[in-house]
Amino acid sequence: MAKDFTTREENYSQWYNELVIKADLADNSAVRGCMVIKPYGYAIWEKIQAQLDYMFKETGHVNAYFPLFIPKSFFSKEASHVEGFAKECAVVTHYRLMNSPDGKGVIVDPDAKLEEELIVRPTSETIIWDTYRTWIQSYRDLPLLINQWANVVRWEMRTRLFLRTAEFLWQEGHTAHATQKEAVAEAEQMLDVYAEFAEKWMAIPVIKGIKSPNERFAGAVETYCIEALMQDGKALQAGTSHFLGQNFAKAFEVQFLSKENKLEYVWATSWGVSTRLMGALIMSHSDDNGLVLPPKLAPTQVVIIPIYKTEEQLSLISGKANEIKKALKSKGITVKYDDRDTYKPGWKFNEYEFKGVPVRIVIGPRDLENGTVEVARRDTLEKAVYQLTDIETKIEHLLDNIQENLYQKALSFRENNTFQADSWEEFNQILDTTGGFVSAHWDGTPETEQLIKEESKATIRLIPLNNKLEEGKCIYSGKASTQRVLFARAY
Amino acid sequence: MAKDFTTREENYSQWYNELVIKADLADNSAVRGCMVIKPYGYAIWEKIQAQLDYMFKETGHVNAYFPLFIPKSFFSKEASHVEGFAKECAVVTHYRLMNSPDGKGVIVDPDAKLEEELIVRPTSETIIWDTYRTWIQSYRDLPLLINQWANVVRWEMRTRLFLRTAEFLWQEGHTAHATQKEAVAEAEQMLDVYAEFAEKWMAIPVIKGIKSPNERFAGAVETYCIEALMQDGKALQAGTSHFLGQNFAKAFEVQFLSKENKLEYVWATSWGVSTRLMGALIMSHSDDNGLVLPPKLAPTQVVIIPIYKTEEQLSLISGKANEIKKALKSKGITVKYDDRDTYKPGWKFNEYEFKGVPVRIVIGPRDLENGTVEVARRDTLEKAVYQLTDIETKIEHLLDNIQENLYQKALSFRENNTFQADSWEEFNQILDTTGGFVSAHWDGTPETEQLIKEESKATIRLIPLNNKLEEGKCIYSGKASTQRVLFARAY
Repeated sequence: MAKDFTTREENYSQWYNELVIKADLADNSAVRGCMVIKPYGYAIWEKIQAQLDYMFKETGHVNAYFPLFIPKSFFSKEASHVEGFAKECAVVTHYRLMNSPDGKGVIVDPDAKLEEELIVRPTSETIIWDTYRTWIQSYRDLPLLINQWANVVRWEMRTRLFLRTAEFLWQEGHTAHATQKEAVAEAEQMLDVYAEFAEKWMAIPVIKGIKSPNERFAGAVETYCIEALMQDGKALQAGTSHFLGQNFAKAFEVQFLSKENKLEYVWATSWGVSTRLMGALIMSHSDDNGLVLPPKLAPTQVVIIPIYKTEEQLSLISGKANEIKKALKSKGITVKYDDRDTYKPGWKFNEYEFKGVPVRIVIGPRDLENGTVEVARRDTLEKAVYQLTDIETKIEHLLDNIQENLYQKALSFRENNTFQADSWEEFNQILDTTGGFVSAHWDGTPETEQLIKEESKATIRLIPLNNKLEEGKCIYSGKASTQRVLFARAY
Repeated sequence: MAKDFTTREENYSQWYNELVIKADLADNSAVRGCMVIKPYGYAIWEKIQAQLDYMFKETGHVNAYFPLFIPKSFFSKEASHVEGFAKECAVVTHYRLMNSPDGKGVIVDPDAKLEEELIVRPTSETIIWDTYRTWIQSYRDLPLLINQWANVVRWEMRTRLFLRTAEFLWQEGHTAHATQKEAVAEAEQMLDVYAEFAEKWMAIPVIKGIKSPNERFAGAVETYCIEALMQDGKALQAGTSHFLGQNFAKAFEVQFLSKENKLEYVWATSWGVSTRLMGALIMSHSDDNGLVLPPKLAPTQVVIIPIYKTEEQLSLISGKANEIKKALKSKGITVKYDDRDTYKPGWKFNEYEFKGVPVRIVIGPRDLENGTVEVARRDTLEKAVYQLTDIETKIEHLLDNIQENLYQKALSFRENNTFQADSWEEFNQILDTTGGFVSAHWDGTPETEQLIKEESKATIRLIPLNNKLEEGKCIYSGKASTQRVLFARAY
């Protein structure tokens, strides 16, 4: 399986593309920029969804569903929002096809032109706030804590599976509050939820912070984000949470009668993560042998493979394997016993290794005699012989250990690839060699930020929360600066 | 709450429309024909999804995700399929907006016209079979048992919340098989899954059968369906499962090498249910006091309401209520304790009655003294006093009883509203008075079927599975007939 597989060293980008296809995670489709998420990839996404959904509900949110289409005029209502999204959207102009007069295929029926074009949602603030207007009258209707799981479309020109696709799946939370304070607290709470999910479930360490004005969401007052570092030294934004102020409430005339009987505009947040997380997950842990998955998100956590020569051996091994399977299942562990006789053990080893199954258990005739199994862990590729006594507890600990090890490894990597730069030369030298996060002074102007981006291809990933204030000089302009911010080249 | 609420007797259609809005299930949106599914309605849909998803996985299926868009040319590849869907689809023609030259809002950028238009999927057979071509080479790749949860768009001209909307949510299974026999067995298996779900979870009795050629899915060789009867005597198709033969395999050139090393076309099925089920659920059980939900799909199964005068009483009642809540939760029952002081008990009674919460428990000071509670069931509106001993077991039985009672009630209704007609007069008389299913002879021709539909507005809902053969004369044409089929006016 790992044959014809590019190494990270050779070409990181190609390694990623090949991995996604060969591990059966996703596929390109006949539609430009749109992907097919294959069953194995989708099973991981379902685990991501289930845990996030649980965390959203635990924090008081409920799900709802809003239309796929947004009337074109809605986009013009919030000035910076239209600026941010108008250039990359799919536009529905007609509602019918007809047989082609030449008898070949179908054409768009010119008589079925929409009066107002519809945009396939790139994000749903506008249609949702248009709806909230009728739902919110009084402070009693607040807060409104709603999340939506949906597909969205942004017409990206250069696409890559999971990382940047024209259509992607995501969740978008849209909340409405009576006060600014509550809305800010909500935006910060959801950032914490995302960070906890990234670290505890995806085993990806993230830095929390706010975006510079240039990188803010179109229509937000403040954009909070979590940023992760990939193995090639490029950063990846793994989630954003926006404090939207009263921008959308004003654009869509959403007011409420306060406890003091005053008519006030509603305060808003929105927050989202997408199938892009799949890209982050794949890139953070995988290696030249294929996918590596943290146990908490692996569709299959343990695979059991028999090694045998005779049918009689297989029968005895199967008995033992099914006992082990049952014991592991009692601990909530997902197990697959692969006794297919159409594939040899070696082929199976490669297959599950490539697909990132965290633990492989092998049982052969000698194991039966000794009451043992051979256990291999995917993260370190180490093998060990385990006594069968309390096997379920041992494997449970091993899975926890793998989960923690992946996180620590990624954390060390990030720490070893976070640098300080105090000059423009140093800054570029870091970016051109190791990459990674570069902590550097910036004069705080959008103009400088833009010039740095153009010349170095690095952007300000974030201004860390509770950032230390420190006198310094901007690495680019040399002007006075009050704090370092984190730069990186990014996905 | 039930004030200003139309009764079924007055106007069934208006009763339904008001119920959906007033029970907070769904709302109309700013986009023609597209609905907003509100949190309470979506919570029911999530329960439907969870159970169906479980049943699909138990029968060996996995989930995946395919693109929202389908290239226009794909529709022409399967002749009857394009005929069925071309007249009602949303067409994407452009991929960018631009600022209007007059400075007012945005317009579609004429330079951003797509080379080939994209159709927003009305169903995904074409894009999926185009993908399967690359996934299927050998008999080893079969069967492919894939399901997708997705949104689809059909440009309906007359829409109604849940029952007929331009955009709706659904699942669509698309399976590929090596033999005709296997594919037919799959289509029949999924029909059974749907019927089991409808009867055991939705408490809706359904009849299983096949569609007449006129009513077949566009591209299918055989369409299996389940049909339910609503309280106004109209039928509702609650799910379909199609045996597609080799039609899509041939249209998209999907062949496989058989065990005998022969290149053969793949056999296909597809099957789906949608948010239309919400409409069936609402219409089957609800009454003039509002929504009635079967316990297995109710987001809240039990609500506990305190009645008190003093804070001290409330404190004592809350202690007891929380004990009961804990006991019920231990049985997996979803409970809400509503101790809000902003609403009076009477208001709460109406609210939960209107929203169809199956069981209401009321605790007052006298109950505390007597060790009792008052229990009201939503289906019959009966009240009873329960001793607190083993309350969780009693409520568990009550919920089962309500579930079963709703099913039996709906079954009786259907049985009392299924008729035989042996003449055209009788046929029309039934349709114009009671409505319901009418079992009648039909000569088997599409022409007669069409004429019956035009003159009576009734369609052949299905030819029941294992239908009894019986000599007779077509009620319309008088020609010879070999079996009765079920007619009804339908949603």
